[in-house]
This record gives sequence, structure tokens and C-alpha cells, in this order.
Amino acid sequence: MKYRIEKDTMGEVQVPADKYWGAQTERSRNNFKIGPSASMPKEIIAGFAYLKKAAAYANCDLGVLSIEKRDAIAAVCDEILAGKLDDQFPLVIWQTGSGTQSNMNLNEVIANRAQALQGFEIGQEEQLIKANDDVNKSQSSNDTFPTAMHIAAYKAIIDITIPGVEKLKDTLDAKAKEFVTVVKIGRTHLMDATPLTLGQELSGYVAQLNYGIKALKNTLAHLSEIALGGTAVGTGLNTPKGYDVKVAEYIAEFTGLPFVTAKNKFEALAAHDAIVESHGALKQLAVSLNKIANDIRMLASGPRSGIGEILIPENEPGSSIMPGKVNPTQCEALTMVCAQIMGNDVAISVGGMQGHYELNVFKPLMAANFLQSARLLGDACVSFDEHCAQGIAPNYKRIKELVDNSLMLVTALNTKIGYYKAAEIAQTAHKNGTTLKEEAVRLGYVSVEDFDNWVKPEDMV
Amino acid sequence: MKYRIEKDTMGEVQVPADKYWGAQTERSRNNFKIGPSASMPKEIIAGFAYLKKAAAYANCDLGVLSIEKRDAIAAVCDEILAGKLDDQFPLVIWQTGSGTQSNMNLNEVIANRAQALQGFEIGQEEQLIKANDDVNKSQSSNDTFPTAMHIAAYKAIIDITIPGVEKLKDTLDAKAKEFVTVVKIGRTHLMDATPLTLGQELSGYVAQLNYGIKALKNTLAHLSEIALGGTAVGTGLNTPKGYDVKVAEYIAEFTGLPFVTAKNKFEALAAHDAIVESHGALKQLAVSLNKIANDIRMLASGPRSGIGEILIPENEPGSSIMPGKVNPTQCEALTMVCAQIMGNDVAISVGGMQGHYELNVFKPLMAANFLQSARLLGDACVSFDEHCAQGIAPNYKRIKELVDNSLMLVTALNTKIGYYKAAEIAQTAHKNGTTLKEEAVRLGYVSVEDFDNWVKPEDMV
Amino acid sequence: MKYRIEKDTMGEVQVPADKYWGAQTERSRNNFKIGPSASMPKEIIAGFAYLKKAAAYANCDLGVLSIEKRDAIAAVCDEILAGKLDDQFPLVIWQTGSGTQSNMNLNEVIANRAQALQGFEIGQEEQLIKANDDVNKSQSSNDTFPTAMHIAAYKAIIDITIPGVEKLKDTLDAKAKEFVTVVKIGRTHLMDATPLTLGQELSGYVAQLNYGIKALKNTLAHLSEIALGGTAVGTGLNTPKGYDVKVAEYIAEFTGLPFVTAKNKFEALAAHDAIVESHGALKQLAVSLNKIANDIRMLASGPRSGIGEILIPENEPGSSIMPGKVNPTQCEALTMVCAQIMGNDVAISVGGMQGHYELNVFKPLMAANFLQSARLLGDACVSFDEHCAQGIAPNYKRIKELVDNSLMLVTALNTKIGYYKAAEIAQTAHKNGTTLKEEAVRLGYVSVEDFDNWVKPEDMV
Amino acid sequence: MKYRIEKDTMGEVQVPADKYWGAQTERSRNNFKIGPSASMPKEIIAGFAYLKKAAAYANCDLGVLSIEKRDAIAAVCDEILAGKLDDQFPLVIWQTGSGTQSNMNLNEVIANRAQALQGFEIGQEEQLIKANDDVNKSQSSNDTFPTAMHIAAYKAIIDITIPGVEKLKDTLDAKAKEFVTVVKIGRTHLMDATPLTLGQELSGYVAQLNYGIKALKNTLAHLSEIALGGTAVGTGLNTPKGYDVKVAEYIAEFTGLPFVTAKNKFEALAAHDAIVESHGALKQLAVSLNKIANDIRMLASGPRSGIGEILIPENEPGSSIMPGKVNPTQCEALTMVCAQIMGNDVAISVGGMQGHYELNVFKPLMAANFLQSARLLGDACVSFDEHCAQGIAPNYKRIKELVDNSLMLVTALNTKIGYYKAAEIAQTAHKNGTTLKEEAVRLGYVSVEDFDNWVKPEDMV
Repeated sequence: MKYRIEKDTMGEVQVPADKYWGAQTERSRNNFKIGPSASMPKEIIAGFAYLKKAAAYANCDLGVLSIEKRDAIAAVCDEILAGKLDDQFPLVIWQTGSGTQSNMNLNEVIANRAQALQGFEIGQEEQLIKANDDVNKSQSSNDTFPTAMHIAAYKAIIDITIPGVEKLKDTLDAKAKEFVTVVKIGRTHLMDATPLTLGQELSGYVAQLNYGIKALKNTLAHLSEIALGGTAVGTGLNTPKGYDVKVAEYIAEFTGLPFVTAKNKFEALAAHDAIVESHGALKQLAVSLNKIANDIRMLASGPRSGIGEILIPENEPGSSIMPGKVNPTQCEALTMVCAQIMGNDVAISVGGMQGHYELNVFKPLMAANFLQSARLLGDACVSFDEHCAQGIAPNYKRIKELVDNSLMLVTALNTKIGYYKAAEIAQTAHKNGTTLKEEAVRLGYVSVEDFDNWVKPEDMV
Repeated sequence: MKYRIEKDTMGEVQVPADKYWGAQTERSRNNFKIGPSASMPKEIIAGFAYLKKAAAYANCDLGVLSIEKRDAIAAVCDEILAGKLDDQFPLVIWQTGSGTQSNMNLNEVIANRAQALQGFEIGQEEQLIKANDDVNKSQSSNDTFPTAMHIAAYKAIIDITIPGVEKLKDTLDAKAKEFVTVVKIGRTHLMDATPLTLGQELSGYVAQLNYGIKALKNTLAHLSEIALGGTAVGTGLNTPKGYDVKVAEYIAEFTGLPFVTAKNKFEALAAHDAIVESHGALKQLAVSLNKIANDIRMLASGPRSGIGEILIPENEPGSSIMPGKVNPTQCEALTMVCAQIMGNDVAISVGGMQGHYELNVFKPLMAANFLQSARLLGDACVSFDEHCAQGIAPNYKRIKELVDNSLMLVTALNTKIGYYKAAEIAQTAHKNGTTLKEEAVRLGYVSVEDFDNWVKPEDMV
Repeated sequence: MKYRIEKDTMGEVQVPADKYWGAQTERSRNNFKIGPSASMPKEIIAGFAYLKKAAAYANCDLGVLSIEKRDAIAAVCDEILAGKLDDQFPLVIWQTGSGTQSNMNLNEVIANRAQALQGFEIGQEEQLIKANDDVNKSQSSNDTFPTAMHIAAYKAIIDITIPGVEKLKDTLDAKAKEFVTVVKIGRTHLMDATPLTLGQELSGYVAQLNYGIKALKNTLAHLSEIALGGTAVGTGLNTPKGYDVKVAEYIAEFTGLPFVTAKNKFEALAAHDAIVESHGALKQLAVSLNKIANDIRMLASGPRSGIGEILIPENEPGSSIMPGKVNPTQCEALTMVCAQIMGNDVAISVGGMQGHYELNVFKPLMAANFLQSARLLGDACVSFDEHCAQGIAPNYKRIKELVDNSLMLVTALNTKIGYYKAAEIAQTAHKNGTTLKEEAVRLGYVSVEDFDNWVKPEDMV
Repeated sequence: MKYRIEKDTMGEVQVPADKYWGAQTERSRNNFKIGPSASMPKEIIAGFAYLKKAAAYANCDLGVLSIEKRDAIAAVCDEILAGKLDDQFPLVIWQTGSGTQSNMNLNEVIANRAQALQGFEIGQEEQLIKANDDVNKSQSSNDTFPTAMHIAAYKAIIDITIPGVEKLKDTLDAKAKEFVTVVKIGRTHLMDATPLTLGQELSGYVAQLNYGIKALKNTLAHLSEIALGGTAVGTGLNTPKGYDVKVAEYIAEFTGLPFVTAKNKFEALAAHDAIVESHGALKQLAVSLNKIANDIRMLASGPRSGIGEILIPENEPGSSIMPGKVNPTQCEALTMVCAQIMGNDVAISVGGMQGHYELNVFKPLMAANFLQSARLLGDACVSFDEHCAQGIAPNYKRIKELVDNSLMLVTALNTKIGYYKAAEIAQTAHKNGTTLKEEAVRLGYVSVEDFDNWVKPEDMV
């Protein structure tokens, strides 16, 4: 491979000749060989591209950057957002905890790519755009990385998570309405209980997802506040007056999302409670979805030795050894995602609790876990919706058979003959393998007519 | 000990003669010898007392319970709330996951105590109030226990958690304002950085707590919805029309808190996402408080070999072997509480994710962990406030010494002479153990006058 | 209440006149009103009693404590171990993170109680035994508290956890052998699969518990190492030569457990990885037991609309509204315990990871969570064993019905006619609601005789 | 793109013409678009290659597979292990929880690649090797996937984790020995305490890592047991006699690792407690390393306003805005990895606890989290070792200054003049800003000579 020499404040570094990154990126590449390369999430790179462009615009408006420089920087940012420079960001999550090196990766690539767009080779001629002095103007890693985190996180929630969850919720809601009269046995403690309708059962899932989406939306206000303008420690040193508000406005404009400058920049650098908060809502959704997916696979279990009250789509052969087996694979994928999110929540909390003084240095960890959760949750809901939920159908025959046979219909007699006599009927029928009606009449507690009038599953829902 | 015989649908049970509880409570005592006795939180018992009284009123209003029975039930509930029957609730958290046995504990105690208030001995004469048919009327464990959970959780947040956190926040806020001009060195990555004021530093903590309180309050709407009226599986079987709305109104009246009937009773029994959601906010506060308490103990570390920028109260001798040692013990208590809450969050999430069909059977676990967190967090904030935060004082001498000596003041030169030359000055001073000014001038980058004009810590905050 | 005045290095404190504790205990009571009082685990108090007695013996042997003082100290320690002074330890978990105040609580109670045993009132006459100089001789909180933790933790595992888990394991093992020929349907992905025997199924649970016990025992060597002798920072300052080895020998003698002095005292004070390690094994057992208990309740679900392959004891009425309902309550208690232990594991890990320099100050938190887990796990296994596992019985009729009806028996044909044709048979039977045999013959793939020879559930296990 | 038609038991599927995978892989690609593609860890693919080859050999030895087929299968497995077919495994973690589809991915690729190695195009001529009947012979996804997990996990621990941790431990051990006489102030509760040597301090870290490695090795026996031979539900249906032992021997031979057949195959499919167990040890190491890395960055903090007792290498510029700043970036990367592993532990435990009946269907989740932890831990230790630990050097001047100035040296006087008088000396010196000696003499408790004789930091370690 061919190399060129780049310099930073520590001296010279050999950099691959065909790459736009510079000395500091290369140092990081060499010093942090931890896990697969280029693991820093692409969404963070994009977040940086938005904010570098916004900073250039704000700096220009405020008279500290020329229009030429602004446009040169913005042009490269647009290329990054278009995915044209994806191979220029080789760094890993497991670098400095402020993400400084990824900030410098962006600064270096933008500066060198701008030079290339001018028709020069890297290192040829006077540098039009300087990585630190121009691209990073009015910025610090300490305020840019958390800004990139918020941009990436907010976008992921809006673009992927919420649409995915809502798509699933809408399907379940339609199913809940469709099956609102399908009376089935209820189950509490996994044991037979009084009846409800399949629609009612599904409506509980819909309610869970509605609460979860609402909880997630409740966290967006905090996430919309960005650190940019705080620079090194939150004081905004080396920024022009009015910069923080203006740069947030540009970010809002470029992303189409309602970002504003953080009210307290010290908090915005030293803590990432907004990430903790929003991920708490993702975790709540994971808790809900685990319950829902687990229920659905139990209800669909069988075909002959399970519960079998619902049918779900058969998407693929289920076994490499048992012919004809079909499994609730979408439920499995979704519940695995839920388990991952529960783990990610701990990773994020552990990172969030360990900020020191003016800076939290678990930023890349927190960002990576958050973005994984946000995407997995959205993707898994879409997959589950398309390949499972939309195909849910009642197994009417089985549903009727089970509800008709249930001993818990006896609950309808509580208000007629009291809890104790009702219990005696149920226990006797259970012991004898008979029906409630047989025993109710035999014990002399209820007449045949009363039984038929009082014990109607469809009136119990 | 003397015993009497009590009966339930399974047969006879020996019960201590001097206790009001009955057969089902006693069975649970015998069948669940897991951990210390009587571990079911008292707040849950109180929650039940509110709801049993409210149910009696609603049942009476709706014509299914006599005024005499209502008043008899209510009188015992009032005794329970006054703490007069604390020794009547011997059951443990680790019982049936629906809390049925604690519901029956309440039903039995209320029924038998009502009989005693009539002047009878337990078992003597016709039972005025029946545990299942009267006290539990229009109820199931499945809707009462989650209702008791929400009452207890909501009350704990309102009565203990929020006041505690706000008390601490108010103190920190006052300190932030008091010290707003105390310029000190900033620290990022634990390393010297550009200056800020002590007030600014503390303002970050205040912002964290403000966000945390807001996040917690965001969850209260969900927590205000109660399951009561759903009975066994959410359908409301065996309840009179209008009961769910009315009983929630009575609970709101009796507790003084804005409870309403849950929009979807199926969700309210089968999932406890409201508990997951609110505890997520408690966990966020724990994350914040861990950062704050950790910072404070580091800032106060010393007295001679630490950071030593602030002084905190000396409350007790710190060492059984090192005479004269004083430690940041309130920080330690608070951070231990934070660690507990992080664990509790996982316990609650693991419980919340495992509901099955129409019922989540991790209710007592979820309730116990939630209530512990809510109380510990509030108590620990009050303790920390009174015995630590209120006594925080700057160590002015040390603060000035450190800021004056800092190499990171060089950042003020970035916009004057560029990042590279500024770095050279700092590195040279670091290597030589000299001051920035000496090296800035010696290197010929800045004149003495310019240095004095440009590098002023008080202008950098 | 009556008070007396006690003094420590900070001055005077009012202490309840009828209590043996002194100034430092009282300061802690007043300064840490966090959660219920006296929450410091009793097992830790007992651990201290063992070590204070052992220290007195070692100090005496090494010539730094008189025989009279040794015996006076030992006499009170024996009283503490006999439970006679339980009301003398009012402190909470949420105190200083080194547990210094509980160490002083012990020192003060032992000193004052010794005085009382001499016939004096507290404060009357010259103090025979001094809290710091005698009871705490050759000790620091920093080495005593972790020693008390290891004693308490080791004892809890040996006395409660392992016996409880083994009791359950033995029962399951006996059941596994008893039911080794009961052929039943297997289930993978919750779906019907090839058969196995009920005994084989249960043998998997036995294997899990065997691995778990082995994993737990693997951690005991680390836990057997005690910090005592390290004093303040691990150097053993102010201890006589040979003290650390000798005091460990006495602790081993008094507890009957194989304690030895820690090889590295710096680690023993600054980190509690032994607690993290052992609790990791408790968490593994919780993971195992959750699977086992969950399986059992699913297998026992019904009575008419569930799986119903096994019967479990009916211990109590299961519903306050549904008469005759019986629930798998022991499974619920056990799985709630498992969820708690998973949370405790995070609390312990979060505490363990945050040691600073020469001391970890999350000791009481780590101890309390560990001891809760160790006890709950043991207790819950005993309860589950006695009230559930011992009563497990096959529902032979149901088992036979399900296995005979299964489509997955087709797997036996794989090696005869190939996977594809076998799949076709199963899918056709599924679609038509017919039997495998009917379709196998109808499709012309297998003769009746071959089918009967090849497809025998009992040959497939 | 060009496609060909492939078939499975469910019908036809379009597959990219240039890929070796078949219908079932393609179905999975289409049905599980969750997160980035090809996320199934490469280590799992390699684990499968080992086991498919071993199965072919065992099947051949036992007379159920021809030598030609064995060699054809083995040849492709060797190609996979050599990394020649990396682009043939497009599936994601978030698929069926048994990993069936990845098992089929292997089966299909091996079969089709074998055909290609014969000089045919896919689909051309009679298939030499059949995916289900030959490659998967005597196997099920249910026993192959856990076998691949154990192979991958064991290899990662042996190849990456343990060498990485040991490399770091060896460096710290050498440093501990090198600095064994460098007396420094100790710190407990972050506060000044009695002295120890820097070597002693580092020796505590070495002890932690030694315990951690031992704990990890303790788990390997469980991990060495492999499920292969259990097939669908653990009974070993459709395997030749002796197969399970023989196939494990071949895996041991091919991997050079001591794999044996699992004693209980039911446990080996239905639970993955071995993964939970080993990851528990990884988590313990993460707890230890977090403490170590955190200490090191605090000890190295400064350069002028921190603790500054040690120097660590300056590897890269630390700030994009603060010139000359150098940060403890390796500590940050390592502690972020520790936080990740703590989260992964929860994900794995949540997966492990949710097995159902004969199968745990969180296999890919558990595998992916385990392998990430094992690799990150090893890589991060190597990185930390090379770029930080090896360069640790004492800042002798600073160390001496701090220890000489410490008030906690007073502890040496405890055994001479008692705890109370010693405390008075320390408190007076603290209040007056004087030295211990000055106050000791002034208070008349110690003569100058005695003080000099008794209070020697170097005698206190």
C-alpha cells in the first residue's frame, strides 16, 4: 500500500495515500485495534456531517468563516450524507470516550476532501480548509459528539423505531377489532380462567404499544436539546455570540427535526441522561414486545400438542431434521431483540452513571448501544408485522372446543349461589372429569334452566 | 400458642387464635417460607386498604352492598391505614405472583376484624362480613393487586421521591447561584481543561435533576390508571355497571391523588409497563445522582493528597484505625442506593417481560422493587442534602492555586495564534514545568501584554 | 426516652440509655435515615461476632491482648451469635460504603456489654474493654467488613443455598428415574417435536442444577480468602507478626469453614470480586431455575385448556373470584426469586466495578444483595421442592393422547424414505387433519407393516 | 442480478445465481431484514465448519456416509475455515432462535460448493451431496448450533481473551515488582490514608486478574461439553450408535481443544447455562478491569490539577480544541468495553432464562453477545497493555511530596499513644494547616525523637 506523511501536534504519521483521513485518525486506527474495524455507527458519522455543515453556516453568518470555506465544508458534508465517502471512517467505538478521534476523522476528511474537490492532491498547495481551525471552528469534540449522538438517536427513533412499532400496532389494532366477538378461554397463571374475546386479548397488546410509543415520545424533548456551542467544558469558549442558538437552528433545518440548543451546556457534556431516558423507553417497548411475542407463540403452539388457538404464517421449513415442522420464528427473532435491548439498557446506564466532572467519556458506547436498539426494535417490529402479525387468524374450532369445556365458567355463578358453592361445583367436575352443568344440577345448586341462562361465555366478556 | 380452625374451599386450617387472618393467609404462611416473614411491603397493604374501602363505597352506591357492610369494611380499612393492624399481615413477597394471598389476607382480616368490632369473637355468630362475597365484592386479586401497586407506587413518588429529589435540587441550585463567580479549573477525561465556575459546574447537576424529575412526572399519567374493575381477566365480569369509573373516583378521593380507571383493563392485568416506565425514570435519576455524588466526593477528596476544591461536612469519625480521618459517607450511601436501583430496574424489567396471557405473575416482585427504589431514592436525597450538600463550600485557596497554574488556559490563544502554536506552548510548558506565559513569550508567539489580555480565566467561563 | 452521653473523637452524642451502642453508632443512626432501620443484614453482624472473637484470640496469642480481655470480648461475641443482642444493631445498609459504622457498632456494643457483664453500668468505672483499642485491635473497618462479608456469604451458601438446591435436585433426580419410561411428545420452539420420556426431560433439569452447584462450589476457594490482617489499606499496619494467618485459623475453627488469609490483602480491600464471582454462580442458578419452574408450570397448565401433561400439588385456593381454580404458585414464587437475583447481580456488579484506589466503598450494598440472593434461592428451592416438585405426577392419559397424535413421529421415516418425502407426509396429514399412517400409506411411500415397524415413539427416545 | 430457482419442502425460491446458498437461506434473508446483514458471527460459521467436517468423518466411520461424500464435505469445510467462502453467509443474528437457518445456510453452501468442486454448475446433474440427507446427517439444528456456539466460545476464550488478559497481567506484575519500594500515600474513600507502595497497589490489580482468569478457566469444563449427537430433542434420534462420542473426538482433533460429548443432551439443547457460566466470568473480569482502568486514569490525572502520581503514555492529541491536552484514552476504551460486557451479561442471562421445554431459542443472541465480549475483552486488554500499561511510570517527585505531607501517617502512633490522642494530633494539624510532627510535639504527646522513630512511611507499608 502507498502512504503519505501527515502531521499533527505530536508529529508525523504514515497514512494510506488513497484516504482522506489524516494523522489523528490514523493514530486512532493504530492505537485502538479493538473488535472489528469501522464499528463507529454510520448514523454518528451522518450526525457529524449535519452538524459540521450547520457549524460552517453559523460560523459564516456570524462572520468567523468565509462563504467559500462554508460552501467547501458543506459540499463535503453533503457527499458524506449521500454515502459517497463511507470508506473514509475506519474508526471503532472503542476509542477515546469523548469520541474526539471520530470528530477529528470528520475534520480531517472534510478538509482533505475539500482540497481534492479543488482539484489538488492531498498535501499539495496551501490547505484551503484546515481541519482544526476551520472545520472544527467554534466546536470541541466534547460538544460535537453528543450533538451527533442526539441527531443520530432522534433520527433513528423518528425514521425507524416509531414507524416500525406503529406499523405493528396498527395491524394488531385491526386484528383486535376484527376478532372482537371471538369468545375464547382466558388464562391466568397459565391456567384456565374466565373467558374473553380474542379481540380483547389483542387490544391489551395494542394498549401496551400505545403506552410505549407515548413514553418514547415523552423523551424526545430532552433528546432535541443539543450540546453544540458548549465547546470544551460547557462555557462556550471560543464561540461567537449567538452561535449556539443559530447552529441548532441550522441543524433543525438540515435534518427537518426540532433541535434546539441545550438550556444547560454543562449537563449536555457531562451527562447523557437524555440517552438514558430515551433508551429507557426503548427498553419499556422491549418489555412489552417480549410479552406480546411470547403470548403469540404460545397461542399458536401445536399443531396438535399445544394451545393452538391461533394460526400464524408458515414462512420457512422449521427443522433440518423434523420434516413438516413450522416454528414461530418471527416471535423468536423479536424476543431475541428484546433481550438485546435489555442488555443494552444496562450498558447505557453503566456508561451514563460514570461521567466525571465536566465530561462523560462513555459517549461512543452509549451511542452505539442506543442506535442498535433503536434500529433493531424498528426493524424487528416491521419483520414481525409483515411475516407474522398480519397473518394471525383464529383457529375457530379449537377456540370453541376449549371455551365450551372450561370449568372457570363457574365464576358466572358466584353472584347467584356464592363463591363456596361455585367452587364445589368446579372441583367436583374437575375430579370427575364431568361438565359444570352436570355437577351443578347433580349437587342441587342450580336448575338446568338457570344454568343455561346464567352460564353463557358470550355474556362473560 | 392457641389456635382456632378456619375453613376455605380446600378444607380446614389451624390459625393462631389471636390473629384476624384466616385459612388462606395461613396456608400461604405455611407454603411460602421464603426469606424474612412479612416482607410484603406495608405500602401495598395500605394500597389495599384504600381500594377495599373504595370498592365498598362503589358497591354500595351501585346497590350491591348494604350501607352497614360498607361502613363496617371502611372502618377496618381506616384502622389499617392508621397502622393499628400492622401485625396482621404476615405474608411474604415470594408468594403467588398475582398477590392473591395478600388480597385474601386483607379480605380475611377485614371480615374478621369487622366481626370483632361488632363485639363478637372470630367464628362466633353469623359472619356479618364475608371475606370473598363482601370484602372482595366486584374484585379479583388480578385487578386489586395491580391497583394496590399503582396506589403505593404513585404515593411513594409523590410523598417521598419527588420531595426528596427536589429538596436536594433546590440546595444545589442555591449553591450554583452562590458560587456562580468562583472560577475554577475544568476537567475533562479527568484531565485539566479550560476553566468554568463552580456555580456552572453545580448548575449541570441541577439540570440533571430537573430533567429527571420531569421524566418521572411524565410517567405519572400511566401510573394513575388503575386496573380495578377488570376483575379476573379484564372483562369486568361480576361487576355492576359503572363500577370501574366510580371506584377509581373513590380511590382518588381517599388518596388525594388523580387516579382514573384504566382505559384498557386487559393491559392493566397482563402487563405492568406503567411500573416499568416509572421505574425507568427512577433509574435515570439514579444514573444522574451517581454522577453527582461521585463528582462531589472527588472534588472534596484530600485533605492533602486529593483534589480538595470543595469542603463537605464532617459528620462522623471516618476510620476505626486512622485517627482524624473524615470520609464522604453521604456520597457513598447515595451511590450505593443508585447501584441498588440499577439492579432493581433489571429485576422489574425481567418481571415485566414475562407476563403470560391475561396475567402478569411477577406483581409482588415488581411492587417490592419499585417501592424500595422510590423510598431509598427519596430518603437518600434528603440525607445527602442535609448532611452533605447544604454544607458544600469552596476551598477558595485551593481553587485559585489550581486554576492559575493550569496549562489549558492556552485554549484562549486558539483564536489568536491558531491551534498548532498554542499546542506547542502548552507542551513546552508541560515538559519544562514552566508557565504558559513564560513559554508563550519565549517562543515568540505572544507578547507579555497580549498574553495578559488574552489569557484570563475569568473571561473564559 | 432516657439518654446518656457518649463521646468519640468528634465530641459528645446523646445515646439511648438502655442500649449498648455508643457515639459512632448513634451518629450513623442520625445521619443515615435511609429506608427501614436496622437493615444491615443479621448475617453480617454474626460474621463480625466471629471475627471479633477470632481477633481477640489471635491478639492474645500474639501477646498484644490479655487473656481477661480476650475472654470478655469472646463472651459478648458468643451472646451475639446466640441472638441475645439482636436489638443492639440499629444501622442501615445505606451508611458509609466501608461499613465502618457497623464495625464501630460491634466495637461499641462489645465494649459496653463487657462492662455490663462485669456488673457495671455503662460509663461507670474505668472501661475494661475499649472499643477502638481493644475490640478493634489489629483491625480496621476496611479489613473487618470484607471479612464479615465473606464469612456471611460462605455460611449462607453452605447452610442455605446449596442444601436447598440439592434438595430440589434430588427430588427431580428421583422423579427423572421414576418416569424414565414415560414416553411423551417433545417440544421445540414450543411446537410439537419428536418424543422423549418424561424422565429424560426432567434429567435435563437435574443436569442444569448439577452444573450450577458445581459452578457455585468453584467460587468458594476465592470466597474462603479473608481480608483480615490487611487493616487500613492492605499493608497490615499495626498488626503483630503472624496475625493474619492466625486470625484466619481461628475464624475457620469457630465457623467450621475453611477460611484462610487472603494471599493479596490489597485486592481483598479494594475489590470484592469474590462476591461478584460467587453471585455470578447464584445468578446462573437463577437462570436455570427460571427455565425449570417455567417449564413445569407450562407442563401443568390446564386443567382443560392447557398442556396438562403433569399434575402438581394443589396447595391453596388460587383465585378470590374464580372458584376451584388452582395455580402453579410455587413456580411463581421461584421465578420471582430468580428475577430478583438477576437484578441483584447487576447491583453487585455495579458496586464491584466502582472501587477506588485502596478501597471499594460499596461493601454493605454488595453484602446485602448477596445475602438476600443466597437465602432466597435456598429457601425458594426448599419451598418449591416440598410444595411442588415432590408432588409432580404424570397425567398418563393426556401424555399418551398427545404423543400418539403427533405428526413429528414422521422423523423416524427420514432415514428410511428421505427428508423430503417424510415432510410431504407430515404436511399432508396436517392439512387434512389425518394421521401420519393414513397419509404415508395413501401417498404410497410406506406400507402399513413398515409404518408400524418404523414409527414407534418408544423406539425414538 | 441473475437468479436461479431453488426448492425446499415449501416450494420454489429465487436465489442469486452466483451464490452457493439455497432456498432456506434465501427465505431467511427475505424474512429477517433486521439490522445489518450478515451479522451472524463469523466464529459461529467456523464452528459449524468444524462440526460438519467432524460429523462427516464420524458418519463415515460408522458406515452411514461414503468416503467420497465425507471427503467432499470436508473439502468445503476446509475452504470455509480458510476464509474462502466468507461471502456465502448472509444471515443475521435475529432469525429463528435455534439458528436453524444458519445451519441450513451451511448445509446448502457445502452441498452446492461440493457440486461446483466436481465441475458442475449448481443444479446441473444429480446432486452429489444433499444438504439435509448428507451434510446434515445425524444432526439437527438443535444440536449443531449449540455445538458451534461452544466451539466458537471456547476458541475465543483460548485464542483471544485469556492471552489478552494474561498479557496485561504480566505487564502489571512486572510493574508491581519494579515499583515495590516506591512508597506512596494510600487512599480509602478517595481520602488520604496510610501509605503503601506503588508496587503493592499494582499487585492488587494483578491479584484481581489472576482470580478472574482462574474463574474463567473454571468454566471451561462445562463449555467443553458439546450437544452434538442429541439431534432434535436430545434423544439422539437418527444417529448411529457411538456417534456422539466419536464426533466429539473429531471436533477435539480438528480444533485442538478438549471437547467431549455432553453428559446430558437434554440440558445441552434446552439450556445454555455453560454460556451463562463462562460469560459470568467474563463479566467478573470486566468488573475488575473497570476498577483497574479507573484507578489508573485517576492516578495519572493532571497534569497540574489532578492526582498525578503516575505517568502514562501520550499516544495522540487529546482535544480538538484544547491544545496540548493528553487524555487516558486507553482507560476510556477499556472501561467502555467493560460497560458493554455488563450489558451483554444481562442480554445473555435474559436469553438463557427463557428456554422452553426441549429447546432454548435465544441461541444466536447468546452466541453473538458472548463472542463480542470475549473478543472485546481480549483486544482491549492487548490495546491497554501496549499503549498504556507498559508505559506506566511513577512520578517520583509528586509521590514523595504527597506522602510526606500526609496526616494519616498518624496511624503509626495508634499503638504508641492510643487512637484518641492520635486523632487529636491529626485533627489539629488539619485545622492549623501544620504538620503532624509539629502538633504531636506541641500537644506534648510525643517527643521529636520518638516521632521520627515511630512515623516512617517506609515502615508502614
